[in-house]
Amino acid sequence: MRERPAARHGLISEVAREAGVSVSTVSKVLHGRPDVGASTRARVEALLAEHGSASPAGSPPRTILAVFRDLAGPYTLEVARGIVNGAADQHAHVTIGMTNRQSISRWLDECNALGALGMILVISMLAELDQQRIVEQHLPVVLVDPLSEPTIEIPSVGVTNWNGGRTAVQHLLTLGHRRIGILAGRPHSVAGAARLHGYRAALGEAGIPVDPALVKPSDFDFDEAVEAATQLLALPEPPTAVFAASDVQALGALEAARRSGRSVPDDLSVVSFDDTAVAVMASPPLTAVRQPFEDVGRVAARTLVQLADGIAPAVPRMELATRLVVRESTGAPGPRST
Amino acid sequence: MRERPAARHGLISEVAREAGVSVSTVSKVLHGRPDVGASTRARVEALLAEHGSASPAGSPPRTILAVFRDLAGPYTLEVARGIVNGAADQHAHVTIGMTNRQSISRWLDECNALGALGMILVISMLAELDQQRIVEQHLPVVLVDPLSEPTIEIPSVGVTNWNGGRTAVQHLLTLGHRRIGILAGRPHSVAGAARLHGYRAALGEAGIPVDPALVKPSDFDFDEAVEAATQLLALPEPPTAVFAASDVQALGALEAARRSGRSVPDDLSVVSFDDTAVAVMASPPLTAVRQPFEDVGRVAARTLVQLADGIAPAVPRMELATRLVVRESTGAPGPRST
Repeated sequence: MRERPAARHGLISEVAREAGVSVSTVSKVLHGRPDVGASTRARVEALLAEHGSASPAGSPPRTILAVFRDLAGPYTLEVARGIVNGAADQHAHVTIGMTNRQSISRWLDECNALGALGMILVISMLAELDQQRIVEQHLPVVLVDPLSEPTIEIPSVGVTNWNGGRTAVQHLLTLGHRRIGILAGRPHSVAGAARLHGYRAALGEAGIPVDPALVKPSDFDFDEAVEAATQLLALPEPPTAVFAASDVQALGALEAARRSGRSVPDDLSVVSFDDTAVAVMASPPLTAVRQPFEDVGRVAARTLVQLADGIAPAVPRMELATRLVVRESTGAPGPRST
Repeated sequence: MRERPAARHGLISEVAREAGVSVSTVSKVLHGRPDVGASTRARVEALLAEHGSASPAGSPPRTILAVFRDLAGPYTLEVARGIVNGAADQHAHVTIGMTNRQSISRWLDECNALGALGMILVISMLAELDQQRIVEQHLPVVLVDPLSEPTIEIPSVGVTNWNGGRTAVQHLLTLGHRRIGILAGRPHSVAGAARLHGYRAALGEAGIPVDPALVKPSDFDFDEAVEAATQLLALPEPPTAVFAASDVQALGALEAARRSGRSVPDDLSVVSFDDTAVAVMASPPLTAVRQPFEDVGRVAARTLVQLADGIAPAVPRMELATRLVVRESTGAPGPRST
């Protein structure tokens, strides 16, 4: 799919050369300006069409509107990259919106005004009214929901959160850990709840009862995670390992370990969930359950373009597989804990 | 500028209610469909105009094309957020492109095809031919260049790299450090060179000669930085502090310290440059020179919209001020180094 930049210095220059006119004339034709002779215009338009360009002004290329909450958080960039790449595979462009600038319902209006194919929503909550409106207006919409409950009528793309949580804890069990804490998401987050249930499942399968003292719900927030992990480490019987439900929380656990004078993984193992770019640059680099964020974005873009072309997805809810990436933040329980 | 989502359920719904028609009818008017009665259409169009909407289909809202290399790296998201916010302030949308998908010159074509106002280029290099073409075609373009040499004819937005580097090293000198290493950028990076010269200037002002053994050029890359910092720490007379020219390199320095059994800041101080979201989540949180990435994006968007309206910037090159944010990775030289 990649072009060698040196191989081709722009369609407009090429067409200008082939038509024997200036670059500025080709640009005028593209913009529909009147000051170009009829025969020149016809010659340039024919060459543009031959090169598969670049429709004349007034009929914009296909565009997807991708709306995020606020373009923050380490996974946002990776999802955005996937959407832009997935859209490019379908010869579509991506326009970016944020819901902290205007409400979803205004973006639904804007989607019409922009002449966009439809919308990809990367947000944690979608109000009932907005869901109704999407269904009523037959607007092509795909939800990317690391956090929220999938809506039946609207196609959505997520990951296998339960499996991922179970895999993370199984990894710690295999290393010999028995007292394992969790920095979970908030209870209202479906994705967070699924990861917590994966934790419970893995412990249950190993015959280890869940100790409520080891379960700490918090937002996917660094400071809250430092506080929650500090509380876990201050328990009379602290955990030898922690499963953090996001990279941000795992970084909080590393910082809590440092503040309490513990070394990771010698005194505390930490396994993360996300595996964004920050995981590999942590100190130590994090063992993490990888969410295929870029694939999620690609699948969302492909699904949206198909929806716009009248092709419904085979299933309304797509869950992409997670996988464990082992790095240096996990090891066998250390001497302190034996 | 923010709307409370609950306060307003969408322009289309509002107009539908006020016009006494269905949401679907308003949508048809917006799309220019024929199956709406003339008086209904007139009523709906008047209400849409009154609400300052949402031009009818066929005349798309103003759009900026923002082209990145690859939507990777911790600062990209913050620059993108600034561009989207800055564009929204000017009632413009942002379409995202990547140069690893197609060359700059194809994006210049695409900018015409999209009917975009112009382009913001967030890339490290701009070929001579592309620069010429931008100037020849009078295409509104603004460069955001954390890395590359500003081009005289094309407006650009960057930060005060030299000042920032000098401030970082002055901070370490004030804490009592005298043997200070630098994880610098590559020599071809103008921004990196400016930060290195800031380092030299601060040392020079303090009467400390630059020891070439303490200067390690590397890419803004984690693994390279780990290696370079490891070499610094293995010197017969290792530094007591390191100035890293980017957050990614500072994280590499933290990891090199951990691997060599050093505690930060007790055994080694680390000051970073960037202060992206990863700096505050590092362990320990990084003292860093803050680049105002979001402001850079905002200024670039505002400048581009003004250019498209025929208003040249007051100066072609804008440099926004950096500032030092002190956190926990810097302190006085520890007992090991005395």
